[in-house]
Amino acid sequence: MHDITGTELIVIKALEEGVTVIGLTRGKETIIQHTEKLDSGEVWISQFTEHVSAVKIRGKAEIFTKHGKIESGG
Amino acid sequence: MHDITGTELIVIKALEEGVTVIGLTRGKETIIQHTEKLDSGEVWISQFTEHVSAVKIRGKAEIFTKHGKIESGG
Amino acid sequence: MHDITGTELIVIKALEEGVTVIGLTRGKETIIQHTEKLDSGEVWISQFTEHVSAVKIRGKAEIFTKHGKIESGG
Amino acid sequence: MHDITGTELIVIKALEEGVTVIGLTRGKETIIQHTEKLDSGEVWISQFTEHVSAVKIRGKAEIFTKHGKIESGG
Amino acid sequence: MHDITGTELIVIKALEEGVTVIGLTRGKETIIQHTEKLDSGEVWISQFTEHVSAVKIRGKAEIFTKHGKIESGG
Amino acid sequence: MHDITGTELIVIKALEEGVTVIGLTRGKETIIQHTEKLDSGEVWISQFTEHVSAVKIRGKAEIFTKHGKIESGG
Amino acid sequence: MHDITGTELIVIKALEEGVTVIGLTRGKETIIQHTEKLDSGEVWISQFTEHVSAVKIRGKAEIFTKHGKIESGG
Amino acid sequence: MHDITGTELIVIKALEEGVTVIGLTRGKETIIQHTEKLDSGEVWISQFTEHVSAVKIRGKAEIFTKHGKIESGG
Amino acid sequence: MHDITGTELIVIKALEEGVTVIGLTRGKETIIQHTEKLDSGEVWISQFTEHVSAVKIRGKAEIFTKHGKIESGG
Amino acid sequence: MHDITGTELIVIKALEEGVTVIGLTRGKETIIQHTEKLDSGEVWISQFTEHVSAVKIRGKAEIFTKHGKIESGG
Amino acid sequence: MHDITGTELIVIKALEEGVTVIGLTRGKETIIQHTEKLDSGEVWISQFTEHVSAVKIRGKAEIFTKHGKIESGG
Amino acid sequence: MHDITGTELIVIKALEEGVTVIGLTRGKETIIQHTEKLDSGEVWISQFTEHVSAVKIRGKAEIFTKHGKIESGG
Repeated sequence: MHDITGTELIVIKALEEGVTVIGLTRGKETIIQHTEKLDSGEVWISQFTEHVSAVKIRGKAEIFTKHGKIESGG
Repeated sequence: MHDITGTELIVIKALEEGVTVIGLTRGKETIIQHTEKLDSGEVWISQFTEHVSAVKIRGKAEIFTKHGKIESGG
Repeated sequence: MHDITGTELIVIKALEEGVTVIGLTRGKETIIQHTEKLDSGEVWISQFTEHVSAVKIRGKAEIFTKHGKIESGG
Repeated sequence: MHDITGTELIVIKALEEGVTVIGLTRGKETIIQHTEKLDSGEVWISQFTEHVSAVKIRGKAEIFTKHGKIESGG
Repeated sequence: MHDITGTELIVIKALEEGVTVIGLTRGKETIIQHTEKLDSGEVWISQFTEHVSAVKIRGKAEIFTKHGKIESGG
Repeated sequence: MHDITGTELIVIKALEEGVTVIGLTRGKETIIQHTEKLDSGEVWISQFTEHVSAVKIRGKAEIFTKHGKIESGG
Repeated sequence: MHDITGTELIVIKALEEGVTVIGLTRGKETIIQHTEKLDSGEVWISQFTEHVSAVKIRGKAEIFTKHGKIESGG
Repeated sequence: MHDITGTELIVIKALEEGVTVIGLTRGKETIIQHTEKLDSGEVWISQFTEHVSAVKIRGKAEIFTKHGKIESGG
Repeated sequence: MHDITGTELIVIKALEEGVTVIGLTRGKETIIQHTEKLDSGEVWISQFTEHVSAVKIRGKAEIFTKHGKIESGG
Repeated sequence: MHDITGTELIVIKALEEGVTVIGLTRGKETIIQHTEKLDSGEVWISQFTEHVSAVKIRGKAEIFTKHGKIESGG
Repeated sequence: MHDITGTELIVIKALEEGVTVIGLTRGKETIIQHTEKLDSGEVWISQFTEHVSAVKIRGKAEIFTKHGKIESGG
Repeated sequence: MHDITGTELIVIKALEEGVTVIGLTRGKETIIQHTEKLDSGEVWISQFTEHVSAVKIRGKAEIFTKHGKIESGG
């Protein structure tokens, strides 16, 4: 069982075609677990999980976390 | 048993026909678990679950999370 | 036993005849668990449960969640 | 044992004769568990329980939840 | 053992003779568990319990819950 | 063992002779568990317990709960 | 083991000779567990315990609880 | 094991010679567990414990609890 | 195992030579567990422990607890 | 099982090519667990994990933690 | 296992050569567990541990705890 | 298993070449567990762990903890 209570949300809005969201693994090795392509205007909302503890965003996007809003790309 | 206490709500209001809400799996692989089509004006409210840890929204919609309101599409 | 402490309330007030509130299942599959028809002026208050983790609202209604009030339909 | 700590209160004040408060079941099926008739001026205070996870209100009434006060009927 | 920590208080002050406070059961059936008659000026303070999950108030009274003060009757 | 952490305090100050504080039982039946007579000026501070889940106050008194101060009697 | 974390403090300052602080039992019966006499100016600080769930104060005193300060006697 | 997390502090500063701090027992009987004499200017900081649930202060002193500062004696 | 989470800090700054900080035992008896001599300007920071539940300070010092700052001595 | 609830997020935005984020191990030895290269404009969001308890950032970047925003490099 | 969640930080900045930070043991006896010498400008950040429950600082330093900043020495 | 929830972050930005961050052990002995050299502009973010309960910083740096920002060195 994993507890999903209160785990932080990350919200990403793509501002151009082909924004990439890459999830990386939590375990002993940090490797790519999943790669998601976002078209312009698409929104992606995710939690960290038992398997993913890092996310890398490539391309122009708005990113919302509990530390506020920042912009990637550009 | 899973604890559903306090899990975050995501509220989505479609602003055009055919807004798509795609739930993706939490497990080792991140694959599509469910695809929901919303007509214009329909509202969708969901929680992350034991099975879903990411959501992708396509099309023009208002999206409410604890990080505030953003608009997809357009 | 399921813990119902603190689970979020969703409050829906129908603003026209035949507003539909559709509960969808939490499990591996997301299918319709319950469909409720509201007449104009009726109020519906519900929690997410062990069985329901998503709700879809069709028709003109006021919807109150912890992210505030939005209007469906129209 | 069920934990009743912190479960939300719903307060309903009937503003006309015959306001109906219908409790619906939490389980796999969502069916009517209890129907209460309120005369004008009567106040009803209830919690969600192990058995009830949704409430429907018919008729003119003031309804108080943690999302504030709304009016049904009319 | 039941946990009584933090359970909400309901405070009722009768503003006329014969205010009735009716406790209804929490279980599978919602039936009357207790009926209390209050004379004018008497104050009643109660918690929801393992056995009672709804209260109905008849007659003119001030009622205090965490949603504030409302008046029944009249 | 019962947990007494955080259980609410009720404070009552009698404003006339013979104020009555009646504790009623929490169990399946709601019957009188204890009756306390207060003389004018006496202060009574109590918690709800494993045995008592309702209190009735007769006579002129100031009553302090987390919902603020109200006056009984008169 | 009893948990004493967070249990409320009651602070009483006697404003005349012979202020009486009476502790009453938590159990099935509510009987006197302890009687303390305070001289003018003495301060008494106590918690509710596994054994005591009610306190009665006779005589002129300042009483501090989380509901603020009240005066007994007079 | 007893949990000492969060247990309230009582801080006492003697304002004259011979201030007495008397700790009384938590158990079925409330008897004196410890008597401490403070000289003028000495400061005493204590917690309630598994053994002590009441404290009596005699003589002129400043007393700090979470209900603020009061003065004994005089 | 003892839990040290959140246990309160006491901070003492000696304002003269030979300030004495005396720790007294938590157990059934309250006896001296440790005596610390502070020179002028020295700062002492301590927690209550499984063994110590009271502290006495002699001599001129600034004392910081969650109830604020007081001065001993003088 | 590891609890990922509430673990802090670190958000890093590269302001030049080749910003390096180095994760170091939590265990008895503190050695490099993972090295990530960020191109200018890329954003990296990560949690500390069972395996990583320190992060070192080389190159010009904006870094957001609960202690606010700081800039590395330059 | 010891829980290190939330344990308070103490931050010390030496303002002269040879500031001494002495950790004293938590156990039945309070004896010196560790002595650290700080040069001017060095910063020391520590938690209380299973083994250390008191710290003594000698020499001119700024000390930050949750009770604010004080200066030792001089 | 160790709980990493909520453990405090320490953020250090080197303001000159060769800033040293020294982690010291939590156990019965307080010895050096790890020494990290930071070049000017590098940022170091770490948590206390099961193994490290003290950190010493040498050289000119900005240090951020929950007690705010201080500067070491110089």
